[in-house]
Amino acid sequence: METIVVALGSRSYPIHIGTELLARTDLYGLTANQVLIVTNEVVAPLYLERVRTALRGREIATVVLPDGERHKTLATFTMVLDRLIDGRFHRDCCLVALGGGVVGDLTGYVAASYQRGVDFVQIPPTLLARVDSSVGGKTAVNHPRAKNMIGAFHQPIAVLADTGTLASLPPRELSAGLAEVIKYGVIVDAAFFAWLETHIDDLRRLDATALTYAIRRSCEIKAAIVAEDEREQGRRALLNLGHTFGHALEAIGHYERWLHGEAVGIGIALAARTSVALGWLAVRDCERIESLLARAGLASAADGVDVDELLEHMRGDKKADRAGLKLILLHAIGHAVVTRSPGDDALRAVLTERRK
Amino acid sequence: METIVVALGSRSYPIHIGTELLARTDLYGLTANQVLIVTNEVVAPLYLERVRTALRGREIATVVLPDGERHKTLATFTMVLDRLIDGRFHRDCCLVALGGGVVGDLTGYVAASYQRGVDFVQIPPTLLARVDSSVGGKTAVNHPRAKNMIGAFHQPIAVLADTGTLASLPPRELSAGLAEVIKYGVIVDAAFFAWLETHIDDLRRLDATALTYAIRRSCEIKAAIVAEDEREQGRRALLNLGHTFGHALEAIGHYERWLHGEAVGIGIALAARTSVALGWLAVRDCERIESLLARAGLASAADGVDVDELLEHMRGDKKADRAGLKLILLHAIGHAVVTRSPGDDALRAVLTERRK
Repeated sequence: METIVVALGSRSYPIHIGTELLARTDLYGLTANQVLIVTNEVVAPLYLERVRTALRGREIATVVLPDGERHKTLATFTMVLDRLIDGRFHRDCCLVALGGGVVGDLTGYVAASYQRGVDFVQIPPTLLARVDSSVGGKTAVNHPRAKNMIGAFHQPIAVLADTGTLASLPPRELSAGLAEVIKYGVIVDAAFFAWLETHIDDLRRLDATALTYAIRRSCEIKAAIVAEDEREQGRRALLNLGHTFGHALEAIGHYERWLHGEAVGIGIALAARTSVALGWLAVRDCERIESLLARAGLASAADGVDVDELLEHMRGDKKADRAGLKLILLHAIGHAVVTRSPGDDALRAVLTERRK
Repeated sequence: METIVVALGSRSYPIHIGTELLARTDLYGLTANQVLIVTNEVVAPLYLERVRTALRGREIATVVLPDGERHKTLATFTMVLDRLIDGRFHRDCCLVALGGGVVGDLTGYVAASYQRGVDFVQIPPTLLARVDSSVGGKTAVNHPRAKNMIGAFHQPIAVLADTGTLASLPPRELSAGLAEVIKYGVIVDAAFFAWLETHIDDLRRLDATALTYAIRRSCEIKAAIVAEDEREQGRRALLNLGHTFGHALEAIGHYERWLHGEAVGIGIALAARTSVALGWLAVRDCERIESLLARAGLASAADGVDVDELLEHMRGDKKADRAGLKLILLHAIGHAVVTRSPGDDALRAVLTERRK
């Protein structure tokens, strides 16, 4: 087992990476006697009993949500809060988020809000949740018109990344997670990107050594950026590479057509092509990025999407301010920057260019 | 004008107390260009235009809520969020809470949650909001079964306490605010309590000098306690004197029978009588407290309330943990402590004792 610490002073917490972690009661870091496990109908049959067994002796309740991003709403948030209040959960209770990004983001926001903040533990069974949403304390629910618009910064007390649970992951979910892994290489670590070019096939066939390294390096990169800029005043925004495009695509697809990671993968490619169009990024680097995305099982273009609808959704992005939209663009692989959008006309040209 | 600073590091903020503050654009501390003013139907006709005038030149939108605690709900929270999203408010916007505790708590929670946190300014026209909810960053909405159960710690960027606005306050609202003012004396400042005994009549006839002093001293006491314990790990709980009883009464009265301050006033008297029953507080001190409450226009008993219903509601209090209910009780005027509840039987005896 390896442990990475996200260094945030009194809000620091460990991410444990390894096999057979779910049974390790000590790793949960619980002081609470009342535990509410929030999970979904896909994950519950696989791992719920293991978690309940590890936590036995405590007062345990469970909420099983339907699967999918479209349930990450204020309505579901309210329903979980009702369970806490009906069950008379005290301020010293703990929530356990047993599930991917949707379960983690929603449970984290409930934990941030219930009695103005209670503990929570994250157990992300997907690669994406593990390398992304379980690091950094961003919690949220979606608004019908914009993703992650309502939320809080609230750090978990521990994250358990059990590599064994990835075996149950559908290939499409694995690819979606790889989009975020690739992102870390693209924004700040050219050497990690090159490592991914060498090991992408190992990762897709779930080689344990390769997976552990990819997860560890991704968490390390994110943890370092978050420790420097917890509330995204500056550098943390780099982590949003591909996300302005990606969130707009997810909204257009009603959170059903694309998984989050799939939309981010397309967004990374669009950011790279925009960077090429601005003369910032070498064509060769853009091709390497698109090629790695393809080998990870990801698309580089959003076929059939109306460009004006996409641009309209992008204007509602959280990173927009009074001066307009901000984007994360690239000077090279491993060198991303936060910058003003080049404008709708320039984006439209990139979005409508004929693909080779 | 006097200014008290709530010292919370990077989250420090000023409370300005004085006359004709609403026109002073500089005091709002705004950097935002987009402003959403949240107010209610009682306050809007009195002060909204003054605030809009002070902020002119910016993009201003307004939400006018119905008056009353029963609108401090997740439904109203959602409605205000919808306005922000519909209006494409950016992360660098600012909310202005122009109203008492309900408007302030709700707007603060929206500000805490929208895009995971935007700025807000509080302009509390009531005495109660001024000496209580505008200091310390506790924001929340109510759950149908328990008050302030869903919320966040989120500090405003400035508070404007314009003493001129108290002239429009109905006497009942003034008395409700005095309950919180009296609370500060009871918990930590016997000298301030004695000052209140001398000046309670001045306060009730809105003597400006007396009001300014009472507000300043109340804010100073609360600011000092909050600076020491922002997230209520310890000493901050003293500020909840009378609130476990009070919140239970408010819920029983469906947030209509008693104003928050009225319920807290009864709660302070009940806490004092419980302290006497335990042999902790001198009967004479309890009488002084009840007498001051009466002179402030407040009740000391909740006539006609079913004791078991009250106890049942109290058990759902946020300060309850696995070991049971906690209460704030008194050793003397100016000396409160956080302690375990003496138990239902002891409380029942106090709650049903024959009043003189």
